[in-house]
Amino acid sequence: MLPQTRNLLSNIRIVLSRPSHPGNIGAAARAMKTMGLADLRLVAPKKFPHADAEAMASGAVDVLASAIQCESLEKALTGCVLAIGTSTRQRDLQAALLTPEDAAKKALSEARNGKVAIVFGNETFGLSKEELACCQALMTIPASPDYNSLNLGAAVQVMAYVLRRTALEETFAEPELDAADLEEVERFYAHLEQTLINIGFLNPDSPKRLMPKLRRLFSRTRLQKEEINILRGMLSAMESTKTLR
Amino acid sequence: MLPQTRNLLSNIRIVLSRPSHPGNIGAAARAMKTMGLADLRLVAPKKFPHADAEAMASGAVDVLASAIQCESLEKALTGCVLAIGTSTRQRDLQAALLTPEDAAKKALSEARNGKVAIVFGNETFGLSKEELACCQALMTIPASPDYNSLNLGAAVQVMAYVLRRTALEETFAEPELDAADLEEVERFYAHLEQTLINIGFLNPDSPKRLMPKLRRLFSRTRLQKEEINILRGMLSAMESTKTLR
Repeated sequence: MLPQTRNLLSNIRIVLSRPSHPGNIGAAARAMKTMGLADLRLVAPKKFPHADAEAMASGAVDVLASAIQCESLEKALTGCVLAIGTSTRQRDLQAALLTPEDAAKKALSEARNGKVAIVFGNETFGLSKEELACCQALMTIPASPDYNSLNLGAAVQVMAYVLRRTALEETFAEPELDAADLEEVERFYAHLEQTLINIGFLNPDSPKRLMPKLRRLFSRTRLQKEEINILRGMLSAMESTKTLR
Repeated sequence: MLPQTRNLLSNIRIVLSRPSHPGNIGAAARAMKTMGLADLRLVAPKKFPHADAEAMASGAVDVLASAIQCESLEKALTGCVLAIGTSTRQRDLQAALLTPEDAAKKALSEARNGKVAIVFGNETFGLSKEELACCQALMTIPASPDYNSLNLGAAVQVMAYVLRRTALEETFAEPELDAADLEEVERFYAHLEQTLINIGFLNPDSPKRLMPKLRRLFSRTRLQKEEINILRGMLSAMESTKTLR
């Protein structure tokens, strides 16, 4: 594994908020260590330390031992540049729910700049409104509509797996070092949308699904910085054509 | 979910061979149900049925109740067109080890023809030589070299997740039947080039590498008919903006 992958994963923090079952804390620690994660924070765990946690952690008792307990989610997020909350509920949907893969890309992209937290709520109640408000993005693990209740440790395992896979891919893709980051891509979409409104192709009062369709097109590839520059240059040229009239 | 996805996943069988801990059987059942899998077979479980299995299964006790116990792996594989064994050990490497993603593709592809088994060995010893010999392919979950020991239930969760994601992708890919054909894509490039000349962004006397770069961007994805229509509609809107001046 290249050093970069290790560094990115070491900047990922797993936060379990108000976990009820110590066994799940242990399972989460084991899940983390198998995927190269080590930074665990626990917000007001019901029972911890606990024999069940140690038993479920198996060879990952070191992750458990170095876990930091916090009184509140705010404290657990100290020093983080981004917090991504997990949700199974559509009602939390103020923000769009990211897939684990998109959440991992976003997390690892930001992990270049500092700590990124992935926040898991209580086994029964999930994240509260107040906790969700501490998160700048939300993700969900797409599960069966018939039964979408993953065990907490299993959810951490899935997310840790996706993070590791994504980190390895990103590293393999290093020639793409020139890939645009998410903010640049977002600025391109904003520029595109504004231009389409200006040239009368997009009616803001009846946008239909134009922007989602264009996003879907461009998100299938990984836009590079140079490509963003070309595309935005085209948009600016259209704008100036228009103002010349 | 389209019927096809459901059918493919219903042809996936999870086989746990000689599991020691009933809690892991329950966790595997829950992991399966959250990802839409239902066919569980147990080869000579040490303790089953067991209260720990039911506790860990949570809302997936139906998967547990319908699990079939078998004396041997051969019997558990009855009726399967393919068995993929899981391994953490490089020494098992007679066959190449598939990644979970490649294993899922292979499994779902064969699931069109019949039942496909994913076989997990004992928590401590993994699959025996004899058991490995029953499998036509081997996979491994790429884990940290420092600690690669996933809990059995967690390993089933990761594989079930990857299977579901892959099944959904394959199904999502179906609308790509509408992929634009090459002539349509070429007409789009011609239209794009002409528009870029008209708005003064592309100098035909000094084109540099603009068009090749744009071709490279769009050729990384498979443009759909609808997307070509949107893109050419945008180009036409720019043209008419210009003629209005």
